[in-house]
Amino acid sequence: MKKLINRPEDVVVESLHGLAAAHGDLLRVSFDPLFVVRADAPVADKVAIVSGGGSGHEPLHAGFVGRGMLDAACPGEVFTSPTPDRIEAATRAVVSGRGALHIVKNYTGDVLNFETAAELCRADGIEVEAVVVADDVAVEDSTFTAGRRGLGTTVLLERLLGAAAERGLGLDALAALARRICDTGRSMGVALTPCTVPAAGRPTFTLADDEIEIGVGIHGEPGRERAKLRPARELMEQVAGAVIDDLPFRDGDDVIVLLNGMGGTPLMELYLLYNELHRIVAAKGLRVRRRLVGNYITSLEMAGFSLTLLKADDELVALWDDPVLTPALRWGC
Amino acid sequence: MKKLINRPEDVVVESLHGLAAAHGDLLRVSFDPLFVVRADAPVADKVAIVSGGGSGHEPLHAGFVGRGMLDAACPGEVFTSPTPDRIEAATRAVVSGRGALHIVKNYTGDVLNFETAAELCRADGIEVEAVVVADDVAVEDSTFTAGRRGLGTTVLLERLLGAAAERGLGLDALAALARRICDTGRSMGVALTPCTVPAAGRPTFTLADDEIEIGVGIHGEPGRERAKLRPARELMEQVAGAVIDDLPFRDGDDVIVLLNGMGGTPLMELYLLYNELHRIVAAKGLRVRRRLVGNYITSLEMAGFSLTLLKADDELVALWDDPVLTPALRWGC
Repeated sequence: MKKLINRPEDVVVESLHGLAAAHGDLLRVSFDPLFVVRADAPVADKVAIVSGGGSGHEPLHAGFVGRGMLDAACPGEVFTSPTPDRIEAATRAVVSGRGALHIVKNYTGDVLNFETAAELCRADGIEVEAVVVADDVAVEDSTFTAGRRGLGTTVLLERLLGAAAERGLGLDALAALARRICDTGRSMGVALTPCTVPAAGRPTFTLADDEIEIGVGIHGEPGRERAKLRPARELMEQVAGAVIDDLPFRDGDDVIVLLNGMGGTPLMELYLLYNELHRIVAAKGLRVRRRLVGNYITSLEMAGFSLTLLKADDELVALWDDPVLTPALRWGC
Repeated sequence: MKKLINRPEDVVVESLHGLAAAHGDLLRVSFDPLFVVRADAPVADKVAIVSGGGSGHEPLHAGFVGRGMLDAACPGEVFTSPTPDRIEAATRAVVSGRGALHIVKNYTGDVLNFETAAELCRADGIEVEAVVVADDVAVEDSTFTAGRRGLGTTVLLERLLGAAAERGLGLDALAALARRICDTGRSMGVALTPCTVPAAGRPTFTLADDEIEIGVGIHGEPGRERAKLRPARELMEQVAGAVIDDLPFRDGDDVIVLLNGMGGTPLMELYLLYNELHRIVAAKGLRVRRRLVGNYITSLEMAGFSLTLLKADDELVALWDDPVLTPALRWGC
């Protein structure tokens, strides 16, 4: 295992120390219990947007803490859900009188722990709604998940709900918006290489020199197909086709696109893939209103990519363009 | 070779098609001759800032084209300098009546080709000044370079000169500012893995499972030492020590920091390294005024990092904070 770390058991905490040192103007880190909150939390008269999950997917979630996105993020150990007490503490730290919305990726551990945390909060009079992202079209059930796994729609949801909360929307309106976004976001990923969890010390799976995993999960869970490496054009046709056909996205639809690198993919390759995608969506009559190309929901050093399409309209695009100021995403500020 | 590409010979052009498709609001790509210019070029009454070099270091340089940074970037083939005619054409495409400043990384091919391009421009009455970045403290001469190689100071220079040009500084003042920045920026890198140039199809060098290259160049050129993998703490002490001692940076100095990933390094590890750096620079009495943590000057999928420190003052920090709007760096807009 070749990693830029000290002791494997200290990776998450040491990395968060670095995040705090680099971005103290945007966020603060609580180390006991472990969570990350925006520097000006709690923000008065605003619904708090809270997310979290296993570490190793950076910048998700802690890199999205700040104005116009998350009020709090709860990192777990690498590829391990945060415990309910942390989620509860993070929620308490950021909630004002208007309640909190939990954004949860659909992995069994995350769903259970966020549910427990929400119950603990509610028992104490804090209003909490939760939305579960289950946008990965690759498989119906998976290693750690009943139902579809959560993937890149999470990033778009965190940004859009963060903007809507900043505008003053109430908890019910935010929950309705979140459900609408979850209903119309679709994703799928491809791995060229596995990744290695520091505490395990060996790759999460193996791939031959000419093999790829189509529909891989963000922890390296099996996808639809173990296939031979193929040209980017064919690969993107397969992935974009699966994503588009699933909703389906139709001629005339507006979309927001996330073309995401998994951590070990050169930006040059991501833009090359974007070129293929651009051709495909244009031929399908989809109009790309906004897009992100880069590493946003990663799997440590895994080489590969995932594609997310979200059905958009003028309201979502306007929310998207609102100011955002986080370590990983910033504009308008 | 496992890459998300079509034919190796089309990688650069296809990737630039993707860049143009994703960021048409910020930049335009000319494909014959090949160069990238900001969407509103030429900007009247402003010195044009032009850079370029081999591809494979994305987002450098094309990802830094836009307001407050580069007017034009000339990408060469992967790890290969762009030809003088391209650099000349790019300069012509963005120059107004106030001349152009060329930012050149110190690699022999780049230096020669930018010199030739500058002569071609001057012969036609276009004022051109050039600054050569030679900030890599690892070795004095290297595989492709006489003298020190150019590294991360290039990123900081492009941003600061872009801001200063936007403010209306003249060519001579910009050239003087550029020399001052080059005089006080220092860098060094470490590779954990090699990378593979698509056209070559095999790694640029080899490293054993427990080996790293300390002081590696951005094309995989040998550094100071082939060493055993060591904890991040020791590694950062060695790298930061080499960078700090070289200028030297002294107790009380203000600095701008770039902690750069080489393309295949998880963000979690970069922040963990930033934590180590933070401790070291604080102990040395340096004050970090601004910092970037992420992939800015990469070597395809190489795992590793480089550290850049630039001596700063209020003037440079103010320039840093000016609006910038490029695919890879944006704030204040």
